[in-house]
Amino acid sequence: MRRITLLAAVVGALCVAGGVLHYTGSSEIAVFVCTGAALGGLAWLIGTATESVGARFGPAVTGALQSTLGNLPELFIVLFSLSAGEIVVAQTSILGSLFANALLVLGLAIVAGARASSSEVMTFRKRLPNDTATLLLLALFTIALLGLSDQIGDRASEHQVAISVVGAICLLFVYGMWLWSYLRSDRHVEAALEEPCHAELPFPFAIGVLAVAGIAAALVSDWFVHSIDGAVDALGISKAFTGIVIVAIAGNAVENVVGITLAAKGQSDLAISVVKNSVAQIACFLFPALVLVSLFFSTRLTFVLNPVYIGALAVTALAVWQITGDGRAYAYEGWALVAIYVILATVVFFE
Amino acid sequence: MRRITLLAAVVGALCVAGGVLHYTGSSEIAVFVCTGAALGGLAWLIGTATESVGARFGPAVTGALQSTLGNLPELFIVLFSLSAGEIVVAQTSILGSLFANALLVLGLAIVAGARASSSEVMTFRKRLPNDTATLLLLALFTIALLGLSDQIGDRASEHQVAISVVGAICLLFVYGMWLWSYLRSDRHVEAALEEPCHAELPFPFAIGVLAVAGIAAALVSDWFVHSIDGAVDALGISKAFTGIVIVAIAGNAVENVVGITLAAKGQSDLAISVVKNSVAQIACFLFPALVLVSLFFSTRLTFVLNPVYIGALAVTALAVWQITGDGRAYAYEGWALVAIYVILATVVFFE
Amino acid sequence: MRRITLLAAVVGALCVAGGVLHYTGSSEIAVFVCTGAALGGLAWLIGTATESVGARFGPAVTGALQSTLGNLPELFIVLFSLSAGEIVVAQTSILGSLFANALLVLGLAIVAGARASSSEVMTFRKRLPNDTATLLLLALFTIALLGLSDQIGDRASEHQVAISVVGAICLLFVYGMWLWSYLRSDRHVEAALEEPCHAELPFPFAIGVLAVAGIAAALVSDWFVHSIDGAVDALGISKAFTGIVIVAIAGNAVENVVGITLAAKGQSDLAISVVKNSVAQIACFLFPALVLVSLFFSTRLTFVLNPVYIGALAVTALAVWQITGDGRAYAYEGWALVAIYVILATVVFFE
Repeated sequence: MRRITLLAAVVGALCVAGGVLHYTGSSEIAVFVCTGAALGGLAWLIGTATESVGARFGPAVTGALQSTLGNLPELFIVLFSLSAGEIVVAQTSILGSLFANALLVLGLAIVAGARASSSEVMTFRKRLPNDTATLLLLALFTIALLGLSDQIGDRASEHQVAISVVGAICLLFVYGMWLWSYLRSDRHVEAALEEPCHAELPFPFAIGVLAVAGIAAALVSDWFVHSIDGAVDALGISKAFTGIVIVAIAGNAVENVVGITLAAKGQSDLAISVVKNSVAQIACFLFPALVLVSLFFSTRLTFVLNPVYIGALAVTALAVWQITGDGRAYAYEGWALVAIYVILATVVFFE
Repeated sequence: MRRITLLAAVVGALCVAGGVLHYTGSSEIAVFVCTGAALGGLAWLIGTATESVGARFGPAVTGALQSTLGNLPELFIVLFSLSAGEIVVAQTSILGSLFANALLVLGLAIVAGARASSSEVMTFRKRLPNDTATLLLLALFTIALLGLSDQIGDRASEHQVAISVVGAICLLFVYGMWLWSYLRSDRHVEAALEEPCHAELPFPFAIGVLAVAGIAAALVSDWFVHSIDGAVDALGISKAFTGIVIVAIAGNAVENVVGITLAAKGQSDLAISVVKNSVAQIACFLFPALVLVSLFFSTRLTFVLNPVYIGALAVTALAVWQITGDGRAYAYEGWALVAIYVILATVVFFE
Repeated sequence: MRRITLLAAVVGALCVAGGVLHYTGSSEIAVFVCTGAALGGLAWLIGTATESVGARFGPAVTGALQSTLGNLPELFIVLFSLSAGEIVVAQTSILGSLFANALLVLGLAIVAGARASSSEVMTFRKRLPNDTATLLLLALFTIALLGLSDQIGDRASEHQVAISVVGAICLLFVYGMWLWSYLRSDRHVEAALEEPCHAELPFPFAIGVLAVAGIAAALVSDWFVHSIDGAVDALGISKAFTGIVIVAIAGNAVENVVGITLAAKGQSDLAISVVKNSVAQIACFLFPALVLVSLFFSTRLTFVLNPVYIGALAVTALAVWQITGDGRAYAYEGWALVAIYVILATVVFFE
């Protein structure tokens, strides 16, 4: 509790500093760094508060809450990017969160889990990895079809918004069917399996923290997005790198630590659940939902991506399925996922 | 028996009406709609007659007969399209049958099968799904290689017919090896497993129905193909949509109903067998056989497809493998396949 | 022993003849054919000598040695091609070895293994096939990302050497982690499983043969590479065909025979181990190592490939995973792999 108060104070100070730097028109690099760090802190704070809230309701609801609230910072960044017309930042932030979770976090969790196991193999239930693979392939289908049609510039490429809307509705429908089936069928299994959630914060206080952190995330995201233009010029990095690497790691910092810590403690199933739920949610809930929301903005978000990201998404879906689909993973397989992320970050760095 | 006679009379009436409309030079939309419906009916009639013929020989032969005769209407449509120089209709009719079976019919069968199961999971033997995945990957290899070579316009792209012929021979050889192995190894298993086929029609009568329906299918296909040009203009739909969606659903209407009905009754293995056999046969028998046959036409059919269809085929092969390869499928996985088909149909609609 | 001496004499004669033809400025076709045959013979000689050397240390070390030394002829061909500026020959030789092993040799081994089995199915342990699939997907990721970036000509495509170097280091790191884990975890299993290696040659003699054959391989490769330009013109074949088919088959002739012979004897695990180790090594050790080595040459080797090969690699990785990932393979699946190789060779023939 004391540690949390201290860390929350630091996060609060970063938010305030970010605001001061933003409104005093300081160097955009300073705003960028300060608000980026604040966003990472807010993501962690929201995660902790959600866990405490969820302790009232049991693991299934906690999972659902965590998936939904845990992606708040990314959500705000994408919304502000869209309203600022920064379509590259919006798209790469979504993709980056997906890649960071599916490759970097999952990879490190596997390395930690395999080390923690006496047999040097991390074992876990097969269902969630295979479900995630199915959902990723569904999202990939939509994205690949639109991307290919865009590349060859056929007639369908003139109707990208309409096709994206149909695709988004299909993805959300399937995600809903999946979530319903998953929560129902896994309720007793999970209840028996998981250690009870421990409420680190008292319930009403946790609700208050969530509200404040949510509002702060919205404000800080706004400042962050507005600093990007100047900061990437000054730092000499690309916008794609900002989205794929910086936003992704900042926005997923908590899940990073939580998933990897759980794996290192030998709680393989819980670790896989935290990471995989995020991946499925980004691909089949956050992305399509934002496509629909963007209809109310002047800049429309579609599923049309740069072919490099389509290829990366395809091989990521395959690699994650191949590595985790059999319910067993060796440490080298975790390193393979991390290596894929490093190679992707390198390519994006030079974009 | 009575129901069959009645339905056969309706189908006959549709065929005659289609012919009259065609030769009296009526509106091409009327010919298109009438012959399209007649083709669907003929496909159903051929399926029923085949089942009755097969009852003499046991399930293995029935399966082989059904695969071969069940695709008669598509076969005629493709042949007449080729002779009319309608290469887009020919290609998309083949692809559409594949997608309709692998996505729409299989998806609905899984939804029905999962609902029928008390555990909310449809379970079936793994072999056929995995065999289908292997055969689809083989066809995909040929198609993807030719497509990529065509896109970059290298020297190999000037020899598409020759490469397609070699590819077709390879596909047919592997399909033959597979069919031989499959029929042999599964004979006793299937005999024990399946309920005896019930002959709805007496044997000689069934043979007669087959002959008449086959000839009718040839005539009606001819009228249908000739009406496409005018009908798509008047209706404002694309030729690709006609092939991928309309021909596909008309030509596979029976299998649609049969596969889904079997799944709903809990006969998972038989349902999967009907659907999967069709998919494998289209990819590795019908398509390559038509490539070879087209050598006698002035318009040659090759494996060179629009990149959008190559991408769709690749993800379809992966999704079908991922979902059915483990011998278990949840309802949401069926919906995912249906969703993929809807997204594909949407893209094709705008082509 | 006597058979080996005889064959070694033939190989030696071919090497000498190749040298004479090269230095007397004979027809380049003669040099090409003679040195090509000599390279195949040297690959076999190195394989035999390695096995005899390995008999001292046990199967794990033999495997490692065989992978490393068995690829010596390809290694020299690639190096001499790079120094002669023949980037197409260098790239296609690496790829060709991969395709020849993963498709042709593996396919024939499966056909032989399935025939040898009473149940008509070849069964083997699942680990190595799945590990190979993971490593192939990792290599594919690097190659596909660079290839796509190159096709669209974005900013990252100007930094192909830098990205290739990062990718090579990542691949080598993961390959190292895998090899360490594989050798450790499989040591006792393999020791129990495999028949003891029989030293066909006495140890010191084997070391001598290795040294002489290694030097000969270096010389002969040089002559071979210099004859390619003239020979492909005279024979009317493409350089890509030389690399993908001729070098690949010559350089992998031994493994071809060894893997297939083992499978035919029913030693499925050993057969799979010989073939799969080669595939993993080419993709994740030989290729990245050569990328790094090429930094010292004026012609740089990168992971940027012709899109046709990227597509071929992707489907090959998937087909190999699909067919062998479950530890069972039917004869028709072997034929499917062989068919894929034939189709690929046909396309390359027309390049």
